[in-house]
Amino acid sequence: MNIGDRILLAHGSGGKLSHELVTGVMAPVFDNSILAEMHDGAFLNIKGVQLAFTTDSYVVKPRFFPGGDIGKLAVCGTVNDLAVSGAEPLYLSAGFVLEEGLALAELERIVASMGLAAAEAGVQIVTGDTKVVERGAIDGIYINTAGIGAVFPGVHISAGRVKPGQDVIVSGCLGDHAIAVMSERHGLTLPAPVVSDCAPLAGMVKDILKIAPQVPMLRDPTRGGLATALNEIALQTGMGILLEETAIPVRPEIKAVCDILGFDPLYLANEGKVIVLVEKQDTEKVLAAMKSHPYGLHSCVIGAVTARPAGQVGIKTAIGGTRMLDMLTGEQLPRIC
Amino acid sequence: MNIGDRILLAHGSGGKLSHELVTGVMAPVFDNSILAEMHDGAFLNIKGVQLAFTTDSYVVKPRFFPGGDIGKLAVCGTVNDLAVSGAEPLYLSAGFVLEEGLALAELERIVASMGLAAAEAGVQIVTGDTKVVERGAIDGIYINTAGIGAVFPGVHISAGRVKPGQDVIVSGCLGDHAIAVMSERHGLTLPAPVVSDCAPLAGMVKDILKIAPQVPMLRDPTRGGLATALNEIALQTGMGILLEETAIPVRPEIKAVCDILGFDPLYLANEGKVIVLVEKQDTEKVLAAMKSHPYGLHSCVIGAVTARPAGQVGIKTAIGGTRMLDMLTGEQLPRIC
Repeated sequence: MNIGDRILLAHGSGGKLSHELVTGVMAPVFDNSILAEMHDGAFLNIKGVQLAFTTDSYVVKPRFFPGGDIGKLAVCGTVNDLAVSGAEPLYLSAGFVLEEGLALAELERIVASMGLAAAEAGVQIVTGDTKVVERGAIDGIYINTAGIGAVFPGVHISAGRVKPGQDVIVSGCLGDHAIAVMSERHGLTLPAPVVSDCAPLAGMVKDILKIAPQVPMLRDPTRGGLATALNEIALQTGMGILLEETAIPVRPEIKAVCDILGFDPLYLANEGKVIVLVEKQDTEKVLAAMKSHPYGLHSCVIGAVTARPAGQVGIKTAIGGTRMLDMLTGEQLPRIC
Repeated sequence: MNIGDRILLAHGSGGKLSHELVTGVMAPVFDNSILAEMHDGAFLNIKGVQLAFTTDSYVVKPRFFPGGDIGKLAVCGTVNDLAVSGAEPLYLSAGFVLEEGLALAELERIVASMGLAAAEAGVQIVTGDTKVVERGAIDGIYINTAGIGAVFPGVHISAGRVKPGQDVIVSGCLGDHAIAVMSERHGLTLPAPVVSDCAPLAGMVKDILKIAPQVPMLRDPTRGGLATALNEIALQTGMGILLEETAIPVRPEIKAVCDILGFDPLYLANEGKVIVLVEKQDTEKVLAAMKSHPYGLHSCVIGAVTARPAGQVGIKTAIGGTRMLDMLTGEQLPRIC
C-alpha cells in the first residue's frame, strides 16, 4: 500500500487512490464477504429476501448547476447504484449536513428537487437526519443518501459472469455532468451550453432487465469516468476490455472543452449513464430497449470483453494503434458529485 | 411554521427547530406514510420481511473524546436507532467526507474504532463511500452511517401502544456524552473525569425484548436529551408523561458542571442510554434484565405515562412542585454527535 501519510483530494477521486484507501484501510477492518465483492451496492439476503444496499455522500460544488443540483444528484446517484446492482430502488435515507446561515429558500429548492427525482425514480425517502455546523465549517450543504432495493428475480449482476465476447454498451455521450459542474464552478462561458446528464436510470435499467435478465454486469461511470469504471470491471473479473475509440460517444462541445483544458472525456464523471455488458446475441434487443428510452437515445456498442490482457482495458485509437487505459490517477475535477 | 430565512445551529439541535424543519420543509415534500411516523427508524415491509432503516450523520467536534471518537459514535448511534426500533441491527453503510490533509493515522484509528463497535454490536459494514473536500472545507472528518435491521418477531414499537399507567425507565445516568465532548472541546479540567457513555445498546435491548416483547416504546435520548425525547413521545402519542425529578439519575460530577455552566442535564445528549416504556406488571423483570447488563447497571423508573396533560411532559421537582418540560429550544451544545 502506498497512500502516504495524509489524505489527498485524489483519495476522493473514485480512481486509483480511492481504490487503495478502501482496499488498504477500510476493507481489512470491516472485513466481510459482502464488502469484499466491491460492487456499487452490497447484496444482502435477509430472511430469504435479496436486497441491494448502497450509500453515497454528495459534496458537489457549486450546489446548483445546469441540469441539476446537489439534491437531484443525491437521489439519482444512489438510485443508479441500486439500479446497476440489478435491483428495483425502493427506499432512500437522507442525511443533511447544513452550514449555519444557509438560506432556507436554497434548502427548500434542494429538497423539492430531491422530491421530484425520487418521484421519477419511484423511491420513497423514508428516514433522515439533519446536522448543522457553524458558519464556515462547510460550504453550504452536504447530503448523504443510502438506498435499499429489491434485487429483480432471476437477475444476477456479478463479476463472475463476465466472459470474453460480451459486448460493452454505453447509454450515451460522456462527460456532460463533469463539464457542466466545472463550467458553473469557474464561471466559464462555453461555446455551446452544457447540461449535466444527472438522471435516475432505474426505469431504463428495468426495461433492459425485463428483456435480458441474464445481463452479467451493469455499472454507472460516475467519478473516474468510463475508463475507471471499466478498469474496475476488468480488475474484478480478470478479463480484458477492448474499446473502439471512434465508437465512444462524446458531444463535440465536450470534446472542444476537453481539448482546450486538457481533460480526457473518458475520465470525466457522468451521472445519468450506464455501462451494460451483454452476450452478443442480446446486443441488438438491449440496444433497442435502451434507445427507446429518453435517457438512452445515444446508446451504442463501444467495445467488447476479451480474454487478454487480463484485468486491463485497452483502446483502439482513431489512427489505428492500441493503448492501455488505466484507472484515473490523481484527481481531474474534485467535488464533482 | 416559523423557522426564519436562514439555517441556525439550533436547526441541528434535535429540539424544537429541528422538529419544525423536518415537519415544515422535508416531510411535506418527501410525503409518505413511513416518514410520517417520525420514529428513529423507518419501518419497511419488503416482500413480507419487516425491516427497520435509519441514518445519521456525525459531525462531532472534537473527533476524539474521552470514551470514544467519531467512528465509535457513528456505529453506535445508528445501531441504537435500529435497536430502539425493536430491530436486530444487521448491516451498516459508511459514508466518509474527509478533509484534504487529514492524517491517515487518524483515519485508521477512527476506522479501527468503527470496526470494534460494529463487532460488539454484531453488525457488518457492507458498503461505503469516501469523498474528499479541500483543506478548510470541513474540519477533519464527517461520517454518515445508515443501517438496516430485522424487526424482532412479535415486537411492535409504536406510539399507538403507549397508554397511561405505563412506567418510564431510563438505563442510567444522563449527560455523560455531552459533558465529555464539551470538556474535551474546550480543554476544561473537570473536578472528576467524565467519560462519554457512547455504546452499542443492541445487546441490552435484545435482552429486554426477549423477556418483554410487548414493550410499546423504546427511545434513545441523544440530541436534545431526555426532555426532548420524552416530548417527542408525548407529542406522537397524545399522552402526558410525569417524571419524578429525584428519581432521575445524574452523576454528581455532571450535576456540578451543569450548575457551574448553566446546562440542564435533562437536555444533554446521551449516546449509550435507552428510555423504555413498560406496562407496570413488566417493570420489575425489565428492570432486572437491564440492571444485569453492563450498560444498564443504573437503570431505574423515572416516571410514568399519564392521560393528561395530553402531549406534554411534566416533572415533579425535589421541592414538591410540578413544572412542564418543553423540548429543547435553541441549542445548548452544537456538534455533540
